[in-house]
Amino acid sequence: MASLTTETRCDGFLGGGLRLAQPVHGYRAGTDAVMLAAACPACVGQSVLEVGCGVGAAVLCLGYRVPGLALTGLEVQPAYAALARENAARNGLPLQVVQGDLLAMPPGLRGESFDHVLMNPPFFVTGTVAPDSGRGIARHEAVPLRIWIDAGLRRLNPGGWLTLIHKAERLASILAALEGRAGDMRVLPIAARAGRPAGRVIVVARKGARGPLALLAPFVLHALPDHASDAEDLTPAAQRVLRHGGAILL
Amino acid sequence: MASLTTETRCDGFLGGGLRLAQPVHGYRAGTDAVMLAAACPACVGQSVLEVGCGVGAAVLCLGYRVPGLALTGLEVQPAYAALARENAARNGLPLQVVQGDLLAMPPGLRGESFDHVLMNPPFFVTGTVAPDSGRGIARHEAVPLRIWIDAGLRRLNPGGWLTLIHKAERLASILAALEGRAGDMRVLPIAARAGRPAGRVIVVARKGARGPLALLAPFVLHALPDHASDAEDLTPAAQRVLRHGGAILL
Repeated sequence: MASLTTETRCDGFLGGGLRLAQPVHGYRAGTDAVMLAAACPACVGQSVLEVGCGVGAAVLCLGYRVPGLALTGLEVQPAYAALARENAARNGLPLQVVQGDLLAMPPGLRGESFDHVLMNPPFFVTGTVAPDSGRGIARHEAVPLRIWIDAGLRRLNPGGWLTLIHKAERLASILAALEGRAGDMRVLPIAARAGRPAGRVIVVARKGARGPLALLAPFVLHALPDHASDAEDLTPAAQRVLRHGGAILL
Repeated sequence: MASLTTETRCDGFLGGGLRLAQPVHGYRAGTDAVMLAAACPACVGQSVLEVGCGVGAAVLCLGYRVPGLALTGLEVQPAYAALARENAARNGLPLQVVQGDLLAMPPGLRGESFDHVLMNPPFFVTGTVAPDSGRGIARHEAVPLRIWIDAGLRRLNPGGWLTLIHKAERLASILAALEGRAGDMRVLPIAARAGRPAGRVIVVARKGARGPLALLAPFVLHALPDHASDAEDLTPAAQRVLRHGGAILL
């Protein structure tokens, strides 16, 4: 864990409005965290828990966009939890960070429930764990996706919303984990370019609801059909979300 | 059933290349059947079963596009099965129609398996059955979607492909029914217009395969942002499929 605390760098998010210290060599939050925050339908005064908050990127992006939220983050790795606390203070946002494991929910959270739960569960199912342990835990699916979703649903108020982002190829597992326990689902494919398969998917679902699923039009990140430089060809919608902290209306 | 056999009309499909008699007041095949046929990855010489073939629209569109297929249709309603036979003969396509129930697979089919299975299961879960019984059975989800998919998978060769079209809101049920039994899934959202939620979804899955799911870019039917006359503003991709019998490459 030493490498995480010794070498960090401050990155600008949302056009520089939010500044977040991140480990240089560990897991680094980026577009996914910003998109996740943008898709969460939280309103002023509501409570939000991010399960696996890392350095706090998603939950702090959400706090930056929507004022007056009660923000909580759960993070298993102490070094990331410490960075999340620093990042909240650096940006003047009131984030309570609980260091603990979603497999053994800390007592302080076990009795609590929230209006919203956010999550960006680890992605890589196969392959070896990255040599840096922090990055390895954050990127490796050590805890099955279903367990993440179960933990998130348990922390929601009745009628509360779960918002998650994941690889699009895991859509079947996501929907299976939500089946019968959440409804009014919105599935938002995120594609690098128009006409391409989705790389990521955002799923928003309401605990205990029974309304039908909506498979939405994709959110397209880049405008040019082939890229020279990814950074310079964001679509207007992506610019609004990634550079200006806009919401994604689902 | 008398009303079905007494009043039929011949409709042109695929730009008039295929002519299909359909009941005027019963369930009428249309765009969904053509899209289903276009998405089936059948090659010359392979065998195809359509479960619930109605008047034969999808399986005959497929036979029209891909020569040399061994085509079979299963249809529970005798009047529709008779129309499917007539339609095959009218268009010079070799379709074997088996009248029977997917809940009690006819002996002639029980021992057989196919390279491809097509299906367009009934849509409407709630509400009353339409007064016309033929339309009611064809449109009402009397048999749960999972049973349809089970029956289809059982009739496939190992490595064979299931291709189905359904309401997009049923995507979770479709994926749940396929889970662990088919892979290499392609999910194609079909949207009336760009930027709109999908109304239908086509799912293609390979029996016994384990490859990841791909959530594809939507297939958009109409080009104008708002419609005056739906018939006149098909996108080039939709024209290719609906008017000229083109394939959808997934």
